[in-house]
Amino acid sequence: MYEALKQECYEANMELPKLDLVIYTFGNVSCVDRAAGVFAIKPSGVDYDKLKPSDIVIVSLADGKVVDGTMRPSSDTNTHLELYRAFPTLGGIVHTHSTFAVAWAQAARAVPLYGTTHADHLAADIPCTEFMADDRIRNDYETETGLQIIDCFKKQNLNPAEIPMVLVAGHGPFTWGATGAKAVYNARVLEELCKMAFITEQVNPRAPRLKDSLIQKHYNRKHGKDAYYGQN
Amino acid sequence: MYEALKQECYEANMELPKLDLVIYTFGNVSCVDRAAGVFAIKPSGVDYDKLKPSDIVIVSLADGKVVDGTMRPSSDTNTHLELYRAFPTLGGIVHTHSTFAVAWAQAARAVPLYGTTHADHLAADIPCTEFMADDRIRNDYETETGLQIIDCFKKQNLNPAEIPMVLVAGHGPFTWGATGAKAVYNARVLEELCKMAFITEQVNPRAPRLKDSLIQKHYNRKHGKDAYYGQN
Amino acid sequence: MYEALKQECYEANMELPKLDLVIYTFGNVSCVDRAAGVFAIKPSGVDYDKLKPSDIVIVSLADGKVVDGTMRPSSDTNTHLELYRAFPTLGGIVHTHSTFAVAWAQAARAVPLYGTTHADHLAADIPCTEFMADDRIRNDYETETGLQIIDCFKKQNLNPAEIPMVLVAGHGPFTWGATGAKAVYNARVLEELCKMAFITEQVNPRAPRLKDSLIQKHYNRKHGKDAYYGQN
Amino acid sequence: MYEALKQECYEANMELPKLDLVIYTFGNVSCVDRAAGVFAIKPSGVDYDKLKPSDIVIVSLADGKVVDGTMRPSSDTNTHLELYRAFPTLGGIVHTHSTFAVAWAQAARAVPLYGTTHADHLAADIPCTEFMADDRIRNDYETETGLQIIDCFKKQNLNPAEIPMVLVAGHGPFTWGATGAKAVYNARVLEELCKMAFITEQVNPRAPRLKDSLIQKHYNRKHGKDAYYGQN
Repeated sequence: MYEALKQECYEANMELPKLDLVIYTFGNVSCVDRAAGVFAIKPSGVDYDKLKPSDIVIVSLADGKVVDGTMRPSSDTNTHLELYRAFPTLGGIVHTHSTFAVAWAQAARAVPLYGTTHADHLAADIPCTEFMADDRIRNDYETETGLQIIDCFKKQNLNPAEIPMVLVAGHGPFTWGATGAKAVYNARVLEELCKMAFITEQVNPRAPRLKDSLIQKHYNRKHGKDAYYGQN
Repeated sequence: MYEALKQECYEANMELPKLDLVIYTFGNVSCVDRAAGVFAIKPSGVDYDKLKPSDIVIVSLADGKVVDGTMRPSSDTNTHLELYRAFPTLGGIVHTHSTFAVAWAQAARAVPLYGTTHADHLAADIPCTEFMADDRIRNDYETETGLQIIDCFKKQNLNPAEIPMVLVAGHGPFTWGATGAKAVYNARVLEELCKMAFITEQVNPRAPRLKDSLIQKHYNRKHGKDAYYGQN
Repeated sequence: MYEALKQECYEANMELPKLDLVIYTFGNVSCVDRAAGVFAIKPSGVDYDKLKPSDIVIVSLADGKVVDGTMRPSSDTNTHLELYRAFPTLGGIVHTHSTFAVAWAQAARAVPLYGTTHADHLAADIPCTEFMADDRIRNDYETETGLQIIDCFKKQNLNPAEIPMVLVAGHGPFTWGATGAKAVYNARVLEELCKMAFITEQVNPRAPRLKDSLIQKHYNRKHGKDAYYGQN
Repeated sequence: MYEALKQECYEANMELPKLDLVIYTFGNVSCVDRAAGVFAIKPSGVDYDKLKPSDIVIVSLADGKVVDGTMRPSSDTNTHLELYRAFPTLGGIVHTHSTFAVAWAQAARAVPLYGTTHADHLAADIPCTEFMADDRIRNDYETETGLQIIDCFKKQNLNPAEIPMVLVAGHGPFTWGATGAKAVYNARVLEELCKMAFITEQVNPRAPRLKDSLIQKHYNRKHGKDAYYGQN
């Protein structure tokens, strides 16, 4: 039971060290099965080179309890849970501490949309949450991290189906997608966009944000209703 | 038919991920056969590790239509088409989103000729186009990207046979050469020159442009009529 | 005799080049056996790809003399000796010249605690010693390097069991842990924290230090008495 | 004849791409046999992955003419020739276009001695020549590059036996050593020192030069008459 979901989650997790997005036990990927009402997630604090598909933990979407697996799930499990509940289009979620994304999160800045590489993936600046309030930190911290992200999207009127990434101020990135693999793709793209934006500002501190006509053109040729990128 | 051209194009494309110039499906290489009136190009949105020589698409120089191959060609095909038509010495063209070249393109700055590594390859700053006007974006965007590059070379009186690289403002680099392999070489060199120039300005914000006598010396020892670099 | 200790020390040393923390003969790891009153350390100036477990040198905690092994121990041996004597919780010590950690040491700055990646490992800025006084340099230099670190911890009232890393001004990092392997882990984490903090300040020169409530939350979920990270 | 010298030179050259100090055909290593009155050097413009020991060219120290080998020697041969003639302790010479060393050369700045990693290798700033005068450029350019380096050492009263590296302004680094392998070692160390110094200045624009007592201590523990680093 849950074999396929565990395998998908395992494979998506194993991409993180290959793509240099994590070191040691940092980071985690989850994959949801909404029909079954569960998601699969990496166990807490396990090295990637020791991780096995059978180590993946299955968690209930209803109450966040473990329904299958012998290990303790990622300490970030409740953040994933809140995001799956609030954002119904999500099929997979990734959390990493990748270098450049963390740097922007620590700088507590949204990443400006400077070019078409960015616009090929989302038509907005990469949002950054506010720092968490102290009363929230005293509550269930990981649940509140999810709520912090959800609040950020509501307040800025952002659509998580179109903006598959966010920086949590002082912490790091969360990304998502239709599948765990797609969420990992977005984690890798986010790291690249953060690196490019950093160098861009060094090369030209007054670099202009890309104008809206170019943003829409690039976003829509990949994601619009008349998209013509790729083979489908 | 077109087997050799497809193979050449395939091999040149496969260099891009090896040289860390692309991730995922980013980038594309084309190779032209002017006698046959066609060019070969990467199919759109295909992962490099799944790409096969038989996937390469053959496009007519006359009308930009696919003449061989079952896949949809790169979404940037019309940019390649315009460049082959306007610049008769081109044998291959490369487009990437390599990190440092994109950063300079996003910064919308020509890359100053700071040293002999640069002068060994071209005797001018690496040009950067203007941002595309809105009416052009509303036209066939990829055709207009080609025209934007051609305009830039005309306006600045640049010779594409001597300057095998350009940055498109807010977008990224295009490079070319006598063959697809040589165009890839120039894409790799461009990335290096962009990284070197970035660090140079950080180390000395008043770093001087290389003086013309040194530029000409280095360019001509490799490319002048009395060139003495290499074995020919 | 000392076979297991030498093997542990050898394996920890061999992690340094794999993790890109050293080039050539730079760096060294030691592992202590407090019951036996000795520690094992890399021989001086030996290339990692030629190092064998039997090359590891065993040094007495009592007088710093070699008690087993035919090679000369690391020139930094007396620094390790002083640290083992002063800090009783240490099981292993690492010294590297890793790039970003050295840069902060040369900049003679403590690394500000900018984010949760840092707070997951220590709840304080990464300390940086003062520059060594000339009279100390004229004494046994490596002994004095250890004393310099010990003074820094005393003066700033830092607990080496909670802060497993330090920068020696103008020199580079020392890290430690319950075992040699854990000390290497801290050396790798330190390098990452130094790189993240560098980029953070470039992206936002007024980046705020993480607030104390978030620092305590992250440090304690991994290291507090109610820690819930990992499988134990 | 010259088999051993060619093999030594070949092996030293092959280290350059492995150490990420060169791309494509950039760079070259030479090794001298002073008793035989010749030096071996890489042929011009040959890719490292096609280079064979038998391709190495043997050049006379007396007149700079090729005495063995069928290929044209490196275009930088006359620079090597001048350095061997002027600096009698040199056994091998390396020229690369490694990224950070080139950036400092383009910035036309000597690399300040910021830390012990630097002092472990030389007790002075890494010198940078002046830009070459136009009349020199019109002469034999590569001979003049050698003379430019020699002038720089004379003018600043530097000892090439103690300072095994230099930056040529606007161009890039030359390094040397008792053997070709040692010269390659110094090329790798130089690149690291240039990267560390770049980051140091970003982290602290007022970072202090290391004080002389620390410089002498570190230089002498490796290179002084009472050196105690290593196994000899």
